[in-house]
Amino acid sequence: MTSPQASPARPLGVAAIGYAFMGQAHSNAWRTVASHFDVPDFEQKVLVGRDAVAVAAAAKKYGWSESATDWREVITRDDIDIIDICAPGWLHAEIATAALAAGKHVLVEKPLANTVAESEAMVAAAQAARSVGVRSMVGFNYRRVPALALARKLIAAGELGTVRQVRASYLQDWLADAESPMTWRLRKETAGSGALGDIASHAIDQIQYLLDDTVTEVSGKLHTFVSERPGPDGLEPVTVDDAAWATLTTAGGAIASVDVSRVALGQKNALTIEVYGTAGSLKFNLENPNELFFLNGTEPIEVQGFRRILVTEPEHPYISGWWPQGHVIGWEHSFTHQIRDFLNHIATGTDPSPSFEEGFGVQQVLAAVEASAAANGITVTIPSLLPTSKD
Amino acid sequence: MTSPQASPARPLGVAAIGYAFMGQAHSNAWRTVASHFDVPDFEQKVLVGRDAVAVAAAAKKYGWSESATDWREVITRDDIDIIDICAPGWLHAEIATAALAAGKHVLVEKPLANTVAESEAMVAAAQAARSVGVRSMVGFNYRRVPALALARKLIAAGELGTVRQVRASYLQDWLADAESPMTWRLRKETAGSGALGDIASHAIDQIQYLLDDTVTEVSGKLHTFVSERPGPDGLEPVTVDDAAWATLTTAGGAIASVDVSRVALGQKNALTIEVYGTAGSLKFNLENPNELFFLNGTEPIEVQGFRRILVTEPEHPYISGWWPQGHVIGWEHSFTHQIRDFLNHIATGTDPSPSFEEGFGVQQVLAAVEASAAANGITVTIPSLLPTSKD
Amino acid sequence: MTSPQASPARPLGVAAIGYAFMGQAHSNAWRTVASHFDVPDFEQKVLVGRDAVAVAAAAKKYGWSESATDWREVITRDDIDIIDICAPGWLHAEIATAALAAGKHVLVEKPLANTVAESEAMVAAAQAARSVGVRSMVGFNYRRVPALALARKLIAAGELGTVRQVRASYLQDWLADAESPMTWRLRKETAGSGALGDIASHAIDQIQYLLDDTVTEVSGKLHTFVSERPGPDGLEPVTVDDAAWATLTTAGGAIASVDVSRVALGQKNALTIEVYGTAGSLKFNLENPNELFFLNGTEPIEVQGFRRILVTEPEHPYISGWWPQGHVIGWEHSFTHQIRDFLNHIATGTDPSPSFEEGFGVQQVLAAVEASAAANGITVTIPSLLPTSKD
Amino acid sequence: MTSPQASPARPLGVAAIGYAFMGQAHSNAWRTVASHFDVPDFEQKVLVGRDAVAVAAAAKKYGWSESATDWREVITRDDIDIIDICAPGWLHAEIATAALAAGKHVLVEKPLANTVAESEAMVAAAQAARSVGVRSMVGFNYRRVPALALARKLIAAGELGTVRQVRASYLQDWLADAESPMTWRLRKETAGSGALGDIASHAIDQIQYLLDDTVTEVSGKLHTFVSERPGPDGLEPVTVDDAAWATLTTAGGAIASVDVSRVALGQKNALTIEVYGTAGSLKFNLENPNELFFLNGTEPIEVQGFRRILVTEPEHPYISGWWPQGHVIGWEHSFTHQIRDFLNHIATGTDPSPSFEEGFGVQQVLAAVEASAAANGITVTIPSLLPTSKD
Repeated sequence: MTSPQASPARPLGVAAIGYAFMGQAHSNAWRTVASHFDVPDFEQKVLVGRDAVAVAAAAKKYGWSESATDWREVITRDDIDIIDICAPGWLHAEIATAALAAGKHVLVEKPLANTVAESEAMVAAAQAARSVGVRSMVGFNYRRVPALALARKLIAAGELGTVRQVRASYLQDWLADAESPMTWRLRKETAGSGALGDIASHAIDQIQYLLDDTVTEVSGKLHTFVSERPGPDGLEPVTVDDAAWATLTTAGGAIASVDVSRVALGQKNALTIEVYGTAGSLKFNLENPNELFFLNGTEPIEVQGFRRILVTEPEHPYISGWWPQGHVIGWEHSFTHQIRDFLNHIATGTDPSPSFEEGFGVQQVLAAVEASAAANGITVTIPSLLPTSKD
Repeated sequence: MTSPQASPARPLGVAAIGYAFMGQAHSNAWRTVASHFDVPDFEQKVLVGRDAVAVAAAAKKYGWSESATDWREVITRDDIDIIDICAPGWLHAEIATAALAAGKHVLVEKPLANTVAESEAMVAAAQAARSVGVRSMVGFNYRRVPALALARKLIAAGELGTVRQVRASYLQDWLADAESPMTWRLRKETAGSGALGDIASHAIDQIQYLLDDTVTEVSGKLHTFVSERPGPDGLEPVTVDDAAWATLTTAGGAIASVDVSRVALGQKNALTIEVYGTAGSLKFNLENPNELFFLNGTEPIEVQGFRRILVTEPEHPYISGWWPQGHVIGWEHSFTHQIRDFLNHIATGTDPSPSFEEGFGVQQVLAAVEASAAANGITVTIPSLLPTSKD
Repeated sequence: MTSPQASPARPLGVAAIGYAFMGQAHSNAWRTVASHFDVPDFEQKVLVGRDAVAVAAAAKKYGWSESATDWREVITRDDIDIIDICAPGWLHAEIATAALAAGKHVLVEKPLANTVAESEAMVAAAQAARSVGVRSMVGFNYRRVPALALARKLIAAGELGTVRQVRASYLQDWLADAESPMTWRLRKETAGSGALGDIASHAIDQIQYLLDDTVTEVSGKLHTFVSERPGPDGLEPVTVDDAAWATLTTAGGAIASVDVSRVALGQKNALTIEVYGTAGSLKFNLENPNELFFLNGTEPIEVQGFRRILVTEPEHPYISGWWPQGHVIGWEHSFTHQIRDFLNHIATGTDPSPSFEEGFGVQQVLAAVEASAAANGITVTIPSLLPTSKD
Repeated sequence: MTSPQASPARPLGVAAIGYAFMGQAHSNAWRTVASHFDVPDFEQKVLVGRDAVAVAAAAKKYGWSESATDWREVITRDDIDIIDICAPGWLHAEIATAALAAGKHVLVEKPLANTVAESEAMVAAAQAARSVGVRSMVGFNYRRVPALALARKLIAAGELGTVRQVRASYLQDWLADAESPMTWRLRKETAGSGALGDIASHAIDQIQYLLDDTVTEVSGKLHTFVSERPGPDGLEPVTVDDAAWATLTTAGGAIASVDVSRVALGQKNALTIEVYGTAGSLKFNLENPNELFFLNGTEPIEVQGFRRILVTEPEHPYISGWWPQGHVIGWEHSFTHQIRDFLNHIATGTDPSPSFEEGFGVQQVLAAVEASAAANGITVTIPSLLPTSKD
């Protein structure tokens, strides 16, 4: 087990693995963060991908000094301190455990892995690395949407009283067209699951994050509305869900419903969250990410109502790094905030959240939804969670 | 000058004149009010119209005991105490002054009259009648929309601080189609004006009502987008405006903009009002009349925002007469509230608001908009208002 | 079994039983319908209640000629043709079966009854009565909200293609306050169930109505967040649910989620329904009942989006009886439409919908939710439905 | 007059002048554009400011290779091809004319200048430079908000028919607090005007841009609600407007209203635009910049309504450079699009829009509003416009 440099005389060296959608989003964040936030010095050193020509072009475009095709070599380089894993889920465990063993700080895209077993191995690696000062984090970036960070703050401050109910959904429609072609995302062996792992994971993470609570019981259902899709050689079976439903109970006594779909025609990226407490309530929709709706139930009934907070004031989380009030930010900014926090934890020698343990916790809930769905919806109890670290 | 019965031994007798759109709305209110509110006893006695057969059918349908064709005869009947004038604007002055002279309480649809001269005569008649206990009221029914009554209450209570700006509009589209046929509403000699008198009058009344203030200066513009429309014998000239704009200054120092249109395609009945003060703000749209949006500018900036108050709580104006919270009411309910208040003023011997003087005040503003528009937009000062009575 | 009058020489005689919230809503509809719609002649004859003084006052207020305290006597009167049952659920079966046996047309408030057994008896009575021309209907009034009637029409016309998913919720907050007192509605023996029977029944009926489909499988959960409430002699146990969740599968292959709650702070009467099909989608919220949001998925992607249809055009269901475009109607109007349709079915000798069979179908789904909830969420199959009649 | 390099053997060299709010927004765009769009090669060479230490820090933070304090020296450097002027308005004319004379392509922040006279000089300089292939552009960045670019495209395609009315407003509240201190923006000698030049200029540019039309007549009003504000030595007079109103007529016969304010409490950055045509209508609000509301008036009335287009599809303007559908972008992205278009015009040797002539056109309208306001609102005719170039 290698420790990271105690006090680097040089900027932190960063390598990112993957340059598809998530690689582009992370690259944008690395390229942007220092222009808007105070962070330790770092350099975008290497972008890693399998296709040498394509990754070289991507590196140039996204601001990386070099490109490479062998991640194993990159993670051993002395000038690399941070590995940002944007590769598909089935590669997360192998890369992350190797990088942590090599003493590199690791940020890994969500979900933590495709299986509970892989996730457990990653948690073990993160715990061993943590003991020698190596940091790890899983990329549930929506925690860094200012409106959702504000939501957590309001709940933690007691503005909602005791939370009773959460209604969460994540609705998209990119698979609504039955003629949309087969991809690796629609095969269980490569994707693990469909809408469940891809987008329900965000909803479940938010429930646990906003309430600072853990899910203990789950009843779930999965369904595949389009069971065959055209491949290069004709129709192929779709082996993952394209919609999922779950009812969750938390340790704190709240009950949450989760609906997710990739075929909800007309919904584009609608992660919606409603939280109902004894003293107040909140509503959010990722398609309008700068807005948080808050109801203060302690006000006179005559003037009670959900207020639309435009979360663009300097007093709001992360906003002081950006523009004057009312000048809204976009979807990708949550990644920039994630990099800011990750870098600052490295600089201060503290553990970032969401930890791999928290990512593992989400994975357990996903596995329980699958188990319940396979057993006709019967309620499944989540195993006791590993100890978690939160910031 | 005749006084009304001091203490009637019988229910109040009501006659309504007119059975078109407004006659139907008023009839519905008379038919409904006693089922939902405590009001003095009354009877829907006579509905008056020119076509004997049609008015008889309308009387039966809308709950009137009889019908008649001669309003002059009806207003002298001993069993009639109240005259509700729903006839077109050019008949308001003649009927109202005669009815008041006959000692009948008078409710007249807005606008008070088609001209300032007629309005002045009506005010004189109302003042003379008032001195012998006869009540009069003009039907700016939107004052009795619960959300707008709440808005006035919040402003009066200082929740907005000093009001600086109002933005009002009233947008419809029933004349957007250039092939829509000619009607009496589009001729100056019958209608007086177009969008100005019909719908800007509501916006202007609201400005004066909500702020408890009076307009003192006006710059205005009128326009007719469709200047000819098909009549039975070919195209006829449209001689009234189908859209109007005005910028108003009030005695209290507020500035208001008013936009109204009958050709705003896609807007159906959108009376929108925004009020901006030093301490708070309000927004309203008649297409969603049960909602009032209120911003309290004294709250911490972190949680400030326009809240949607669903104005359906028993604590809200007029609502205790209706349904449990959340069960919304419709457009016509404002007329029922208007009848309730009118009847209760008669019962208690007090003067209702909006008085004919207040109606005259609106008329003066409308005339000033016309004068300004005719003089290339130059600012026109409103003559000093007559003394007004407000409840 | 008595037949109704074949061709009455007199207006239909109506008696209503119950004068609380629903009795008031139904009375309002009887009092209003003939002013806005063409219906057969009828008379509001008798209002029935247990408290002679109170029911006499209510009868006067709501437009009934007489009052009575013995419903058994009223249902045998020769001058009564229609019995409108607004009494609490536990009385539905006894009154309805007796009235049908007496040859009276019966409208009964939803839910059909508190138990499946009672519902079965009512269906049997309705079928027997139907064979001799006696009509029966259950009052799922929201089917007559114009926006929802339009929604059904669009779905039936194929505008949504094949429906895949429905998301329905009914959120209120009148029990959010834990100090709100105990009532008969919170005891299983009187209320049958809590949020489930009261409001989930509406959501479930809508799913079956909008899709013209039947629910075949259910997984459900019930929860009581406030398990004790203050009674006159101290805290009493709440024995019904105050929130319920269900995931439903229909015969046609759609999957629906249902969330209902009486403790969703800030939600007042939010029956929300979203329907996602292969060609289009719909959204609705009862707090803004004049709006329907429709997405046409066959348009060019560049201009696709949920459009807000203000359902106030004469071309829309039921609207021609009301006001010009843009002049919105309220919650209670759905009851007026219900009476209109009920009367017209009586006049034309056809069976109205929702029939008792349809009400029974909803009852079966509610029972299945309870059974699933009692069995840890396991999926429960709904028994084959009785034959239904739909108009 | 110097020509730019005909075919540079090296990347275009860029210098930006100013590093306050607009300098930061422009720098972000230069730093970002090549990661998302295909543009000619360029280098962020020099950032210019008056304070050597501060500008050096800003240059490092925002991605510029060097910093400098003397703009006159920078605009003569051979390695500089493009001057991006983000300095305050009173410096625009001097810098722009000098840079154009030196053969540098110039992008200048809006408004073009503080006075019409300065604007005229800038137009002359741009026209002279254009003749030798030097490009110039004024930074009305909101033209590059995808939703507004789509709006223009729909109007140009005839989807709205003939535009009759526009309602535009730009509402902010950063001066709502009367205790907010005095700044140079509130003095006429430095700022030119207040809300008028700062934000009404955007609204007016949009009207001309969206309709591809020019304003010909104006009636206006200016007002200062807070006439004194605290300075370091006590209260100082505010000599610019904090709100402005105008009614505009266009050459094409449309009429537009414009309301702008810096004291509209609760409105943060609400540039709202509504366009009503004979065949369709549009609505937009900059606080939700990814949304465009479009009504197609040619559809069956039963399903007509304003649809919310989430302008995040690859088919939408500029979006293909960003993220998958539904992943919204922010306020600053309009600047990135502006740089993209500016660079591509330089590369292709074509003139970008908005040209200095177009900026001058806006300036004329602003001057006419001031002239009308000074003459009690009388309608003022705009002088004939100079020839414009549009792309």
